[in-house]
Amino acid sequence: MTSAQDVIAAARAAELSVAVAESLTGGAVCSALVSVPGASHAFVGGVVSYSLSAKHTLLGVPDELLETVGPVSRDVAVAMAEGVRTRLGADVAVSTTGVAGPEPHDGQPPGTVWVGIATARGSDARMHVVAGDREAVRDAAVSWALAAAAQALVEVSHA
Amino acid sequence: MTSAQDVIAAARAAELSVAVAESLTGGAVCSALVSVPGASHAFVGGVVSYSLSAKHTLLGVPDELLETVGPVSRDVAVAMAEGVRTRLGADVAVSTTGVAGPEPHDGQPPGTVWVGIATARGSDARMHVVAGDREAVRDAAVSWALAAAAQALVEVSHA
Repeated sequence: MTSAQDVIAAARAAELSVAVAESLTGGAVCSALVSVPGASHAFVGGVVSYSLSAKHTLLGVPDELLETVGPVSRDVAVAMAEGVRTRLGADVAVSTTGVAGPEPHDGQPPGTVWVGIATARGSDARMHVVAGDREAVRDAAVSWALAAAAQALVEVSHA
Repeated sequence: MTSAQDVIAAARAAELSVAVAESLTGGAVCSALVSVPGASHAFVGGVVSYSLSAKHTLLGVPDELLETVGPVSRDVAVAMAEGVRTRLGADVAVSTTGVAGPEPHDGQPPGTVWVGIATARGSDARMHVVAGDREAVRDAAVSWALAAAAQALVEVSHA
């Protein structure tokens, strides 16, 4: 399993910077990265855009996108990653949006998680689904985000 | 000790919103708040301004302030709290900036932590000092931030 240490090590080895935009994980991805000594050499910062207004105000996610496809979607995951990457001038940005539960949200069942990635080469997002309580969903989402960030760092550094 | 649950309960009872700007705690304050079911009714979002550029770009902390008094200071803690409060339109904003260690930073020894608070009534910051490793310093900083937020919520709701 990819750890925060792996992400920071990969970023430092390739001299790349990392930024994060989090919704359902609520700061846990950033917190995991910052827990690694020397994180400041690679981790620039992040945004916890828990509300719709924060997604719009802090990350520039278009209101019409939030209204049409909804916050738990590929398009919003991509827009969040692109938004934080642009604002912080990072090489690689990762985002999370999903439903931690216990209630459904945005018409999606608990356990639905989108992880977005943005780099200079483009951006994309992938959906994951996990069963479990609020904490289990958030923990799984953090792991997926770290794995996606590590993979993107490898891809960018070998491009 | 004030828990994240206490903060969310106080905010929901008073119908007040909360925003967070974090440096050394790196998302752990946001993450603690989001771990409380129903957090979305009170927690708007936050910024993890780990780098100097993130403090400036995402929170509007003046570059000259960062250069003169440095990031680990009362003035920057206050500017971070005011910046996130304004951007997210929150009732109460709390900020953290300090030195988790193991190395000194910005001329300050590890364990130095400033917690800022901004409300419609004004803003202020308080310095705390704790001995311990990186994790202990960050854990203490999260506790101080939650306690400060809870106190500010009580003060604002009784104003």
